[in-house]
Amino acid sequence: MSQEFVLGIDFGGTKVALAIASWDSVDRPLRKTRLPTLGGEGAQQVLRRSLAAARELAEWPGTLQAVGVSTFGVVRGETVLLAPTVPGWEGLELPRLLREEFGDTPVAIDNDVNAAATAELRWGALRGVRTGLYLNLGTGLAAALVVNGMVVQGAHGAAGEIGYLLSGPGDPAFADGHAPLEEVVSGHALAQRGSALLGRPVNAASLFEADGDPAVRALLDGAVEALAMAIANVCVVLDTERVVIGGGLMGASRRIVPRLTAEIRRAVPFPPEVTAARFVDDAPLYGALALTLTARE
Amino acid sequence: MSQEFVLGIDFGGTKVALAIASWDSVDRPLRKTRLPTLGGEGAQQVLRRSLAAARELAEWPGTLQAVGVSTFGVVRGETVLLAPTVPGWEGLELPRLLREEFGDTPVAIDNDVNAAATAELRWGALRGVRTGLYLNLGTGLAAALVVNGMVVQGAHGAAGEIGYLLSGPGDPAFADGHAPLEEVVSGHALAQRGSALLGRPVNAASLFEADGDPAVRALLDGAVEALAMAIANVCVVLDTERVVIGGGLMGASRRIVPRLTAEIRRAVPFPPEVTAARFVDDAPLYGALALTLTARE
Repeated sequence: MSQEFVLGIDFGGTKVALAIASWDSVDRPLRKTRLPTLGGEGAQQVLRRSLAAARELAEWPGTLQAVGVSTFGVVRGETVLLAPTVPGWEGLELPRLLREEFGDTPVAIDNDVNAAATAELRWGALRGVRTGLYLNLGTGLAAALVVNGMVVQGAHGAAGEIGYLLSGPGDPAFADGHAPLEEVVSGHALAQRGSALLGRPVNAASLFEADGDPAVRALLDGAVEALAMAIANVCVVLDTERVVIGGGLMGASRRIVPRLTAEIRRAVPFPPEVTAARFVDDAPLYGALALTLTARE
Repeated sequence: MSQEFVLGIDFGGTKVALAIASWDSVDRPLRKTRLPTLGGEGAQQVLRRSLAAARELAEWPGTLQAVGVSTFGVVRGETVLLAPTVPGWEGLELPRLLREEFGDTPVAIDNDVNAAATAELRWGALRGVRTGLYLNLGTGLAAALVVNGMVVQGAHGAAGEIGYLLSGPGDPAFADGHAPLEEVVSGHALAQRGSALLGRPVNAASLFEADGDPAVRALLDGAVEALAMAIANVCVVLDTERVVIGGGLMGASRRIVPRLTAEIRRAVPFPPEVTAARFVDDAPLYGALALTLTARE
């Protein structure tokens, strides 16, 4: 059966995920595939292998109508910024390269967290929300803001980059090469600090399991406390009706969500509800698919 | 000469200001008047005297086309909230009462800081800005957010109420009856703390003149540092292109603006410019006039 379809590509730090879906039901992929990013080998090979996989996936009886792309980093105009994970990705002219690949087919592109928030807005826990916050607790730390029912881009595509928030006046900051909140709260930071504490390599998720150790518990308490203050403050500023939490660290939600909710109730004049995201695995891939709805609007 | 005109009313904590302006040049009032709020005597008399003054002002050859109203507090649906200054103002059904007064003439209403930001967007330092922040440094402390060229209301009309921001995890918070940042930074708070320090009554502006005293300097440094961190954080979250500062404390801008600019440059990935507001005196009154442009749109 021939049909119209869309393509989603999610460029992630460890894997690239791709899917096609029918024009009529973009949230239910027809086919998916994934490949390792192999970031250390540079941006060009990531793009080349990903586009080859996209071509193969798009060999589907029908017409490709729109392409949605999500990427780590920040998309500003014609380049990607704040993307140190893969050498050469920072400064890559991704929008132009994608237009060259897909010709007349419209391409919509946004960063992974904004894309995931777009999926939640269309089909998930942010549906119907006018003012909201999507919080991604993963290897990194970032958020997406929703105002008037749409994801906020900001002046340089960097709205919601809460990893750069200061927790105290003396915090080392962006200009010093730091992402102060991310260095305390993200999965990457917790894994590093936890491994140093325990003298063996641990990831953040297993660290949350090992909180019988007082030093580990203090580390996690400090991180969750800093995150809770930051998110409560974002809710004060935006006056959000809902906070939706996604990302790989949600396995530790038992530790994170109650503290976050308590701090929000304490600090925010009109406290928003805090809920889990609908999309946990592949959230940015669903986001890339959701972006195709924007691309054809 | 008969003409079409609009009316602006600004309900402030110490005075109510009113103006009419021609439909064609809303930013240049034809007549202005003001009266003391006398807040201690309750909300009803403020409203009664203000509407009497409005009627008198509106006795102008021509037709009243729209009314714009700004008020302290937060406008949520049919009531005003977070307005402790005047007993009875909190919970007042201001929108309904104004509609009763003005009949078929459209009425637009917003809080004073959002209104002032609307004036800056239409005619002042926020003109052409898509993502921005208006910071009001006055007796109180509040801000207005601009996203997609419009003032953000938030889910309950409380977006931008930065007086409730936490500066540290242990800060007393809204639920405890506190406005933690406002209690450190606002004109009211500085006057109280400064008066206690010096053993004589001073206002915040004169405190900024008295900074030869080490204790006064420490007080002001602490306040400006807390403000700078908070505003830098708001800029990180929103990715603003411009921050505009207005309000009565701008007389102390020599002390405030450089520190604010420095912290923003240190902490924000894409630092916005920091500039003074165009409207200093009567900013919310100009805001009320600007709101009439929304009322008739």
